[in-house]
Amino acid sequence: MTNYYADSLSANSKLTQISANRCFDGEQHYYSHDSTATKTSMTFSIYLPDEALAGHRCPAVLYLSGLTCNADNVTHKAHVQKKCSELGMIFIAPDTSPRSNAEVDVANDERYFVGQGASYYVDATCAPWSERFNMQSYIVDELYDLLRAEFAITSIGIMGHSMGGHGALLLGFKFPSKFVSVSALSPVCAASESAWGQAAFSEYFGDNKVKWQESDAAHTIEAVGQQYASILVDQGAADEFLADGQLQTPKLQQACEKAGQPLTLRYQAGHDHSYYFIQTVIHDHIEHHWRMAQLS
Amino acid sequence: MTNYYADSLSANSKLTQISANRCFDGEQHYYSHDSTATKTSMTFSIYLPDEALAGHRCPAVLYLSGLTCNADNVTHKAHVQKKCSELGMIFIAPDTSPRSNAEVDVANDERYFVGQGASYYVDATCAPWSERFNMQSYIVDELYDLLRAEFAITSIGIMGHSMGGHGALLLGFKFPSKFVSVSALSPVCAASESAWGQAAFSEYFGDNKVKWQESDAAHTIEAVGQQYASILVDQGAADEFLADGQLQTPKLQQACEKAGQPLTLRYQAGHDHSYYFIQTVIHDHIEHHWRMAQLS
Repeated sequence: MTNYYADSLSANSKLTQISANRCFDGEQHYYSHDSTATKTSMTFSIYLPDEALAGHRCPAVLYLSGLTCNADNVTHKAHVQKKCSELGMIFIAPDTSPRSNAEVDVANDERYFVGQGASYYVDATCAPWSERFNMQSYIVDELYDLLRAEFAITSIGIMGHSMGGHGALLLGFKFPSKFVSVSALSPVCAASESAWGQAAFSEYFGDNKVKWQESDAAHTIEAVGQQYASILVDQGAADEFLADGQLQTPKLQQACEKAGQPLTLRYQAGHDHSYYFIQTVIHDHIEHHWRMAQLS
Repeated sequence: MTNYYADSLSANSKLTQISANRCFDGEQHYYSHDSTATKTSMTFSIYLPDEALAGHRCPAVLYLSGLTCNADNVTHKAHVQKKCSELGMIFIAPDTSPRSNAEVDVANDERYFVGQGASYYVDATCAPWSERFNMQSYIVDELYDLLRAEFAITSIGIMGHSMGGHGALLLGFKFPSKFVSVSALSPVCAASESAWGQAAFSEYFGDNKVKWQESDAAHTIEAVGQQYASILVDQGAADEFLADGQLQTPKLQQACEKAGQPLTLRYQAGHDHSYYFIQTVIHDHIEHHWRMAQLS
């Protein structure tokens, strides 16, 4: 296996390479590292086009996955590598929560929306979650700095699917100085008004309603106002979670209107919540982030 | 979920629909059916572009998967749907063997190359395999006829990966009247000269060396001579199974030379045996089958 990049990690790199596979004109890598924010080992995948492997700086986009996922789902099923290879774009998929912490492993088939695989990308304030469920700090500070230190990156955009779409909208508008672009696929738009989000926030924040508001994407957009030239959101029109109120898409539209934040919101006929939908529209999202990076 | 096609299965259809998901301008479907050839329930996936969903006949390609796979691997990881949607191509992925037959479930982590997930797409002649491991008859007769009866198909090509690449070359040249095109990704080219293939053929055919020869792809091509205007084979140059002799790629080249069968054989620098390689080249294969279908 040709592996251009492993040798060029920094001398005291905190990263351990798990795998490297040639894919189009680039390589799909996996890394693990010990995280300070989550006090455990974290894994992420990164697609590096040949330009980045050769040390030329490229724009990057962080993809936050949805409930129950880890880095594998989007890396295997979303079909991003071809477009990233063509554009010269770096694509990074972190995990959705800390893993292997028995004290917080309350997730199961019935409660897949709390705990492992369901961090909502916030810093929890209530025990037992507050010890390790600090995914906001992990993404926005620790992983962000690590990526900039270890890879040839010009700028970073943020996107996500479902719970990860909420994370991308939330973190993109809480930390606009860190990200050059925001987009979302089938996002939970207002976690504090979704049954999934309410279950999670009750665990992570208890009754602290200020925290609930500060961690709600639509509320945050309305509170901080316009931050990006435009944001792109795709939503399957036949998505069962749109129908049952988990996603609250109109709340995003209202928040953007009040904030003066230009929003391209596309309802795609016949499409559901699955990776079959994601692969259908994600190339447009990668191009959106690539264009925004050129303007930044 | 919009599901155009389920209602238009034939009145006495033998198919049971498992799922339907919108994907690009078409739908990804899964079906199961009771098989006469394998005396058990079989599952396959089929991508149907909108033209086919509307009843207009389209060219189709059968994809035979490699060792340990089922219909999911290629359906989730090979990224064929976009290209098939663009061209108006039907893509069908059968399983790699019968399942759930305790008497033949000898496969395990050490012997993943025999039994479930490892049929080699032959009709076994030795017990206990001969009862249900009749995957040649399943693919070439039963599934073939079922697909033509139930879906809007003009012609069928055949392709595959690894063990499934062997199956595509073998069945394509044994039954050239059934298929309009052949291609393979990282194929086992001569199963009777590969340690994997020898282990499987010993189980399925015992000492019957005539059966070994008749079931070897390179031998079959040499025996039957040119059948197609050209065949396309892609091989990762950094594939560990090429290096260790499982694939026997030069044997395919020699057989095609002797047979006068035009062969486009491409060694792709840096690429391994994984689905990261498959996704890199499979669009070219779909285009190959589409072009051959136009000429047929």
